[in-house]
Parts: sequence; C-alpha cells; structure tokens
Amino acid sequence: MALSVRDELITMKYGAGGRAMRSLIQDVLHDGLLGDDAPGEITLRAMDDGAALPLGNQWLVMTTDSHVVQPLFFPGGDIGRLAVSGTVNDLAMMGATEVLALTCAVIIEEGFSLADLTRIQQSIRRACADAGARIVTGDTKVMGKGELDGIVINTTGVALTDRVVPDSALRDGDRLIVTGSIGDHGMAVMARRLGLAIEGRLESDVNPINGLVRVALGAAPGAVVAMKDPTRGGVASALHEMAGKSGVGIIIDETSLPVSDAVRAASELLGIDPLHVANEGKAVIGVRPQHAEAVLAAIRQHPLGVDAAIIGECTSQRVGAVILDTGFGRRLVTEPEGEPLPRIC
Amino acid sequence: MALSVRDELITMKYGAGGRAMRSLIQDVLHDGLLGDDAPGEITLRAMDDGAALPLGNQWLVMTTDSHVVQPLFFPGGDIGRLAVSGTVNDLAMMGATEVLALTCAVIIEEGFSLADLTRIQQSIRRACADAGARIVTGDTKVMGKGELDGIVINTTGVALTDRVVPDSALRDGDRLIVTGSIGDHGMAVMARRLGLAIEGRLESDVNPINGLVRVALGAAPGAVVAMKDPTRGGVASALHEMAGKSGVGIIIDETSLPVSDAVRAASELLGIDPLHVANEGKAVIGVRPQHAEAVLAAIRQHPLGVDAAIIGECTSQRVGAVILDTGFGRRLVTEPEGEPLPRIC
Repeated sequence: MALSVRDELITMKYGAGGRAMRSLIQDVLHDGLLGDDAPGEITLRAMDDGAALPLGNQWLVMTTDSHVVQPLFFPGGDIGRLAVSGTVNDLAMMGATEVLALTCAVIIEEGFSLADLTRIQQSIRRACADAGARIVTGDTKVMGKGELDGIVINTTGVALTDRVVPDSALRDGDRLIVTGSIGDHGMAVMARRLGLAIEGRLESDVNPINGLVRVALGAAPGAVVAMKDPTRGGVASALHEMAGKSGVGIIIDETSLPVSDAVRAASELLGIDPLHVANEGKAVIGVRPQHAEAVLAAIRQHPLGVDAAIIGECTSQRVGAVILDTGFGRRLVTEPEGEPLPRIC
Repeated sequence: MALSVRDELITMKYGAGGRAMRSLIQDVLHDGLLGDDAPGEITLRAMDDGAALPLGNQWLVMTTDSHVVQPLFFPGGDIGRLAVSGTVNDLAMMGATEVLALTCAVIIEEGFSLADLTRIQQSIRRACADAGARIVTGDTKVMGKGELDGIVINTTGVALTDRVVPDSALRDGDRLIVTGSIGDHGMAVMARRLGLAIEGRLESDVNPINGLVRVALGAAPGAVVAMKDPTRGGVASALHEMAGKSGVGIIIDETSLPVSDAVRAASELLGIDPLHVANEGKAVIGVRPQHAEAVLAAIRQHPLGVDAAIIGECTSQRVGAVILDTGFGRRLVTEPEGEPLPRIC
C-alpha cells in the first residue's frame, strides 16, 4: 500500500472534498478494492460522482452520500432536502435523470426532538416529489446522547440510463455551462454558522436538478459530454477534476460567472472566493461548441436554470490547469484543499 | 399523521430493532412516502429486509444499513466485516445471493486513527472477497472531534434475482430452520462492552452468508418460502415478524435450539435469553415440510451451516404468537422491545 497520507490521525481536511480527501480515498479506502472493470464500466477507480454498470442494453447508475450538514435547518433548506437532492443530482451528473429508487438510512442521536425529525422527514418527502423519486427501503439507528451531533442521513440511489455522461470527456474547444448562480449553498450555511448579519439575504440553492439536466441532455443529442455537480470545493474543484481527468486546460471568463449580490458581499466579507464554495442545486456542464447556445437556451427555459451561463471553454494548452480570465489579465484558479467550512453537506 | 410515537424525544429504544422502532418507522419515517406499488413489488410498506423492484424479467433487490457498532473491533470481527455482511445478508434474505454491487459511505470522527481506518478497510476488503461482492462507489465525510463516536459506515447493496423470497409466506406445517448457533454476535459484543470474564470464549458469528443461502435455495426448488436474518432483537424478533406477517403461529422446540456453551453461560450470567440476542451470520429459514430435511442437509454441508437445526414449525393456531415448547410445557416467547444493548450492529 503506497500511503501518501502522512498524518497518523484523520483531520477535517480529509472530509473536505479536495486533494487531501482524494488522497485518503485513493491510497487507503480503495486499497485492494479495484477489480477488473468491464468495458465502459465506471467504478471506484474513476472517482466519478457514482458508478455505472452494464445491465442488459442499459447502464445501472448508482451513487451514495452521507449527509452531515450543520446546522440541520439553514436558509433555503435542511438536511432532508439536501440528502435527497445530493443523491438525485449525482445520478443526474452521470446522465441518469429518471431515478429508479432511493434508499434512506438515518442515524439519530438520543434526545433528538421528534418534531425536528418529523420536519426533516416531511422535507425528504417534498424533495422526493420534486425529483420524481421514491424511497423504497431504509434503516434506522440511534446512538447515545453525545455520541452523534444530532442526525446524519445516508441516501443511496439507482437509476437506469441508455447513455452515461462521464466527467472526463472534455476536449479542446468545448464550452462550459454553469446552470445558475454559484456559491449559494455554502455561503448560506456559513453565514448561519458564523452568525453573519448578511444572512437574511443568502439562501441555499439546494434542489434536485435531474429535471433540468434532462432538458439539457435533450436539447441536442450527444452535445453534453461531461457533467459535475460543484458541491464540496465548489466550481473550482469541479473544474479541476474535469480538466485533470479530460486532459485539457479550462479558461473561465470571470465576468460571465453568475454570482448573486449577497454571495458576492459575503465572499468579500469572509475573503472566500465563490468559486471555492459549495453548491447543491447546480451543475457544470461540458458541451460541444456548436451546440453550446442551444443547450444554454434549453437550460434557461427551466425554472432552476434562468441564471445559467456559458462560463468558459476548454483548451489543449495548460492541461489540468483552470485559468481565470479577469478581463484585465489571467490567473490560475487554485484547487482548494477542500471546502473552507466542515459539514457543509 | 397518526402518531403512535408518544415520546417527544428519540430514545435508545427507537433504534433497537423492536416494536418501538417499527412504530417510529411506520408512523413518522414512512409518512407520505408509501406510493402505489407495482404487482409483486416490495417497498417500504412491507417492512422487509430490503426492497424488490421489477426489472426486465427479474427483480432488482436493494437494501441499506448504517453500522454504528461499539466497540469497533470485537471478538470475531469488526465494523468493516459487519458492514459488508449486514448488507449482503439482507440481500440474501430476499433470495438475491449474487451481489451486483455495494456502495460504502464512511463518516469518520476527526482524530480517528489512520491505522484503525486501514484495519477496517482491509476487513471490508476481505468480507467483500468472502461474499463475492464488490464496492463500486463510496462517500467520505469527516465530523469534528466529539461530534461522532469514532466511525459509522453505511453500506447499500443491489442484486438481481429471478425469485424474491419474502418474510411473510409461511403457512401451517412449514418448518423453521436456523442455520447455526444463536446469540453469538450480540453476546460477544456485550461481553466485550461489559468486560465479562467469559469474553474469551465468545466470538461473533459475523459473516456474509449469501453462499450458504444459495445452497439452501438450490436444495429443492420452491422449498424455501420465507427468510429473515435475526439481527437486532435476535431470533425472537425475527420469528415474531415472520409469524405476524404470515398470519401463522410458530412453535419452537427449545431442546433443538443450537446455543453454544459460552453463549448459554453468558446468557445465564446476564439474565438475557439468547433468543433475544443479535446474530450477524445466521438466517431463520421457513421451508415446506416435505423438503425440510433436504434443505437442512444441504445447509449443513456448508462450512457456515454445520450447526443448523430445524427448530420448530408453523401452526394455524395462535396466529402471530411465538411459543416455546420446553419439553416440560409451553410458554410464550415475548417480542422484545428491542435489542438489550444499543449499538450492537
């Protein structure tokens, strides 16, 4: 085992969605688990949003996420809506927009209020309805007082699709679309956690976006070649992963980035780049250049895509790099070590 | 919402696998989530070990479990082996013995030792090999120091099967087989937790038993009509659930119950009936009477089934009751409120 993880103890950065986490996963958690994949199969090795396995003449897509967000209720959503959206969106990012089934496993701390549990459950129910998804089986565990901070929820999803969209098929000239304003989820949670006065104007974007992705995929056959949801580590992390896996460079036009005034203000106050902040209802979509405008127009027709924008394009230069064109010059967008605040999702 | 849960706060009993937990699940967690099932479909409503959905001319079986066992390492196993076995066995209990894929989501406490994490990961790897299963996707989260007691692991599994075995198709005269000695897992964990001197002789039975179940199902076509793995709440809970759902009574022959000397001793010391104690490598299998001996013989050929026994039979009398025939008389086996010790799995 080639351990590149040098720490003897797990620290917060290993759960932050960035480089440290990737190294823990690849060097420790995947050790000995990478078997022989069938042609086209996507498993652990790909480090994608989920797995895709051949099944008949289709693909079974599968993804899992545990949700540990703190606080449980935040402006714009709660852990229940997040748990459904996170998993539905990971399926959608692989091209599977019709959810076959979700599982839901809750671990609850002794002393947790039944009223809060009921509120979370109702939120799960509404998010399932929004996504056209259903929970088919579950699991319930209780840990003692002080053994768990409130509640954590795992959701796992399966879906069938005729065509898998990976996160690695970008090539020179492809355009990148973001489906709406960036940084809303992370900033809303951070503002609530830190008690920022600006909090009232910030709201999480947490939403299942499989319907929006369906529209994007339907706009022009074969036009969408790569997708990633910019959760932990934000759009910067997603772009770095897509660039690295695809073997391209990515140039982003800063002026085209959709950022709300409230997120911009919070970002200046905190000194955190919105590109590094988590989203929970957005996608970064790589599109063949000749179809970019058609896909963008289709996305903007969807209620969750009105602020969508083409934010940049791929280049065969500077492979693996993400470059921000500010209008005055260019600078490298750093790959974050991870999300600035823990338990963002 | 018809709340029969009267407590305002969640207490340990709601995670203990017994009546209290069932009432929380049915009255709160399932509220508004029970849709229209397709014919033969098994979803939340059935409260079975997992779900079964029609897919082509087969069934897609799906199950999820979060594992919170304490201590993480116990005689005979650890949380890693438990996480794989628990989910593989739930699939097997529905008749799906060839695992298509597992997901694995870990939540780790800040400060957790990398050496322990590596040990758990290697145990997961070995258990997957034992089960002929593979993990295809995962998730990693870290919670702050004091926000989680060590590590919890969710595993979710999918499998295909031509025939689903429910937990509810028992009828008058059917025999019940238990695939080996009972109470080993729960007693081993309890002894370690309580520091009992007897601990050295106790060992958890934690094992994936999909191979054993495959042998049982193959012994005589259609012979196996119901299966349940007696985890939280033990064999007593499993039998109560099977009796209630099938609309039969069950009479158990106490002298036929396979119980190890160490479990018997611990059970007397603690005043806990082994029937109420969790197992993690056993199944209770309902079989048509004419095939009972053939199925038993097949199970006993399997390395994990050498102590298998026919422990009782179903009756059309006393519907829903589980009755223990001691040889001197008969008494009702109570349905436990739940597992006596929290975090047994």
